[in-house]
Amino acid sequence: MSEDGSRIAETPIPPYVAVIFTSLRTPGDNGYGETAVAMAALAREQPGYLGLESAREDIGITVSYWQDEQAARNWKQVAQHLVAQRRGRGVWYRDYWVRVATVTRDYGPSQSELS
Amino acid sequence: MSEDGSRIAETPIPPYVAVIFTSLRTPGDNGYGETAVAMAALAREQPGYLGLESAREDIGITVSYWQDEQAARNWKQVAQHLVAQRRGRGVWYRDYWVRVATVTRDYGPSQSELS
Repeated sequence: MSEDGSRIAETPIPPYVAVIFTSLRTPGDNGYGETAVAMAALAREQPGYLGLESAREDIGITVSYWQDEQAARNWKQVAQHLVAQRRGRGVWYRDYWVRVATVTRDYGPSQSELS
Repeated sequence: MSEDGSRIAETPIPPYVAVIFTSLRTPGDNGYGETAVAMAALAREQPGYLGLESAREDIGITVSYWQDEQAARNWKQVAQHLVAQRRGRGVWYRDYWVRVATVTRDYGPSQSELS
């Protein structure tokens, strides 16, 4: 289970798509926490969803994983609509950057991927 | 400046490579903090380094950005040597997963990338 992004996502064998969302928050919650939970729940319901990882310190990094480009694009539309409904741009984030990437290989501690 | 990974990295126009390192820590520092700083400093000196972002809450997510696959692979060798020197595997991390990905597109708040 990684419902809130606090576990390492169990993703399939590559290739698949990673959406890396890096952000700087504005001060105060302004309904952010509640919506973040709702967003994660909504993501899980989308076609092609593979997992989500999230951590915030000085910056926030949320990586969501998707079966393919189309699933990632569909999620963007859904996510934007929800954010627009609730708060709109500029209330929660001082700055952000989104990178869409294709995961080509992966490995963990039990694998001796040496090259 | 994002020397410690606490700012949004200023990366060039895609394509470039992202190495997504997600980890669960063991309890206690065990020299981790010092080495993490040394690792970030070492990364910046490598050929093809583009930037690094890092945050830890329940999980840690560190994303390093590289000009190409070869630069990312070279960094892996250097990083592993340093970690092996200092502590070896299993002392700092309860579990981790590494995903190597090619960033194909990116956008921020000022861009109306709508598809």
